[in-house]
Amino acid sequence: MRMYDLIMKKRSGIELTSDEIDFMISNYTADQIPDYQMSAMMMAIFFQGMNEQETAALTMAMARSGDMLDLSAIDGIKVDKHSTGGVGDKTSIALTPMVAACGIKIAKMSGRGLGHTGGTIDKLESFNGFSTGITSEHFISQVNNIGIAIMGQTLDIAPADKKLYALRDVTATVDNMSLIASSIMSKKLASGADAIVLDVKTGSGAFMKKEEDAFALAREMTALGKHAGRNTIAIVSDMDQPLGFAVGNALEVKEAIETLQGKGPDDFTQLCMTLGAHMIVAGGKAKDEEEARVMLKGVIEDGSALKKLAEFVEAQGGDAAAVYDTSLLPKASIIEEIISKEEGYVNQIICDEIGICSLILGGGRETKESEIDLSVGLILHKKVGDYVKCGESLATIHANDKDKLETAKERFLSAYSIGKEPVAPSKLIKGTISCY
Amino acid sequence: MRMYDLIMKKRSGIELTSDEIDFMISNYTADQIPDYQMSAMMMAIFFQGMNEQETAALTMAMARSGDMLDLSAIDGIKVDKHSTGGVGDKTSIALTPMVAACGIKIAKMSGRGLGHTGGTIDKLESFNGFSTGITSEHFISQVNNIGIAIMGQTLDIAPADKKLYALRDVTATVDNMSLIASSIMSKKLASGADAIVLDVKTGSGAFMKKEEDAFALAREMTALGKHAGRNTIAIVSDMDQPLGFAVGNALEVKEAIETLQGKGPDDFTQLCMTLGAHMIVAGGKAKDEEEARVMLKGVIEDGSALKKLAEFVEAQGGDAAAVYDTSLLPKASIIEEIISKEEGYVNQIICDEIGICSLILGGGRETKESEIDLSVGLILHKKVGDYVKCGESLATIHANDKDKLETAKERFLSAYSIGKEPVAPSKLIKGTISCY
Repeated sequence: MRMYDLIMKKRSGIELTSDEIDFMISNYTADQIPDYQMSAMMMAIFFQGMNEQETAALTMAMARSGDMLDLSAIDGIKVDKHSTGGVGDKTSIALTPMVAACGIKIAKMSGRGLGHTGGTIDKLESFNGFSTGITSEHFISQVNNIGIAIMGQTLDIAPADKKLYALRDVTATVDNMSLIASSIMSKKLASGADAIVLDVKTGSGAFMKKEEDAFALAREMTALGKHAGRNTIAIVSDMDQPLGFAVGNALEVKEAIETLQGKGPDDFTQLCMTLGAHMIVAGGKAKDEEEARVMLKGVIEDGSALKKLAEFVEAQGGDAAAVYDTSLLPKASIIEEIISKEEGYVNQIICDEIGICSLILGGGRETKESEIDLSVGLILHKKVGDYVKCGESLATIHANDKDKLETAKERFLSAYSIGKEPVAPSKLIKGTISCY
Repeated sequence: MRMYDLIMKKRSGIELTSDEIDFMISNYTADQIPDYQMSAMMMAIFFQGMNEQETAALTMAMARSGDMLDLSAIDGIKVDKHSTGGVGDKTSIALTPMVAACGIKIAKMSGRGLGHTGGTIDKLESFNGFSTGITSEHFISQVNNIGIAIMGQTLDIAPADKKLYALRDVTATVDNMSLIASSIMSKKLASGADAIVLDVKTGSGAFMKKEEDAFALAREMTALGKHAGRNTIAIVSDMDQPLGFAVGNALEVKEAIETLQGKGPDDFTQLCMTLGAHMIVAGGKAKDEEEARVMLKGVIEDGSALKKLAEFVEAQGGDAAAVYDTSLLPKASIIEEIISKEEGYVNQIICDEIGICSLILGGGRETKESEIDLSVGLILHKKVGDYVKCGESLATIHANDKDKLETAKERFLSAYSIGKEPVAPSKLIKGTISCY
């Protein structure tokens, strides 16, 4: 088999076989196929597309290209959750203890943030001493003992995807639905869960700006999950404005804790309930969404979800006291209000820009090597549809550097559009895609 | 300017500016743009195409990427000729002395052969001592003195094209009309001639198998010549069967000499007359094709074309005696007939296969490093449309190795189709494209 012939085949619009895709991915991972041939192939795929069989074969080939996490030592149905990312997305922090408190085994690998969207691991490190650098054995025994563990990406999960994504990123071949879906799903499949609940974001703060693209990606990913024999459900949710009010690592953790206390923002609570209900049904702990929602309300009301977060933080070396006393979380030295100079209805918030404000304050990574400041960020007081008076606060800004604060403030103000006419915020949950 | 943005632009079907193409080619030549980005660009061009402006900009950028031959020290209009290559194509050997004898200055760079088509330089080396490894000064003074010189590709002509072609060759991005045309024309433009006559081959032995593709390439190249201010004429000619009867280096030289003596094969003579007439008109030595044809007949009849070949061979260190006594050319040790086992009309000769027979005998290069045997090859006795009896010879084979001879013989026989119905050979000159 020659890579040249495979490029020619795809270029001509002929379907590649699973064997051909396996050959291509295993040899590329082993540096036996050069980047210049692979980038030509990626561009040919961009133009000719891949059908369901090809996309499934690519996903499986990438999933098998490195370590595959074996979760068979954990009893019950293991349910994983993945979000395509966005601003203020602290979902994993609140959702996983809620669901774990309902008896679902959470064995999750998470990543750090890059750019303006924060990573779950960074946020969790707001608990002093918390570490995700645990062994697979520790990970599995923790899930068996307390029902929840989150591990950093220490294993060599889907190295083919890592290599291929880096190449696509510099050759303008990222935005193809089959390639995006297989990239995400290869990592999820290698991570070993039996069921996968996906949160596909759409809007100005999401990778998928258009709702139709988000639905297409959701369909593609659930089909890939089905192909691999994993129960996969995707919801499409709004990321046209930040999720909840808090943006920034420790601030988001605080908001997640408040949510576990039943005092969280409406949109964020609703998202956690929806994703949580799907996870509980997929994990076989409830017969339908309604029953699952009752269970989730129960673990919030009786404090067991919050207790689960404390157990989890403690099991991974973190200061669990901060779960009950959020004043122990990292705090910024300068706290100021961002005052509105206009009066009217907030009719748009450029979501990416709010993430960039947090990045400017030091809360995100510009490069992989950047250190991040866990304490900085913003608490929004006005979201889309809200009425604001001149002189009223739009948000509270938490900073440790006066100059950065000023830059972020200015940027924040230009991300807000205020108009005369009232505007309805866009719907949070756009739809659900399920292949089973 | 970033290569990433240019790939994205082309991928999206947006025209690249001349500045962008210059940036891309100069940085690629200087190894500042990696192969993996360029191959993605080539695949994007394959799908999105390039318009006339873009193709012209690419051609000029590649032409300027290395040395540009300056022929201004030669008086008069310098006319170059280029063939897209084929089996038995010894045109340059006969044509250039014919035209030079008519007063056209020939200052030509030629290449060696690779694969089953021989190169002009290899063929000329059949004259013992002949060398194309001459300096630019020697080259120019020889053209001024005797009107003709052929130089090997010692200068760094269009290095961007060389690098890009090698990349396209392994990434399935060769067969795009704009890329093929710019590749050929960049070298021609850098070679400094004022006028260019192109021979675009079509048929089973040509790169362009389909006549419509050959015409498209001819149109594309003449347009590029016009853009660069060079009078450019292209003919499209048949390569569905070998040109003339001889295939193999010294055997082809002998046939070219016979043609200069007025005893050449009809098809080959006709091709030389057509190309020669265009060159003479383009060079301003005749007012029309008809007048030019009379001049060409004259230099054959009075022996001055043959004498010009002898002068030329001698000026470049070759044994000119072989021009008058072809028995001095390299000779093979085994000469055998290939006997037909069938009776009927030759209705097809798979042209490439005849070239491969010569390659098998040792007359071509499998790799750039191969040594070639100048003496071997074939003299066809039957061409398409001819009637052959059982036991009659189809061709004489010249070999130096019994095993190679047997392999070539077998392959030769399967390249011939003999049928009951008479077949007309396809027309030699399919048409002419001229932009002026």
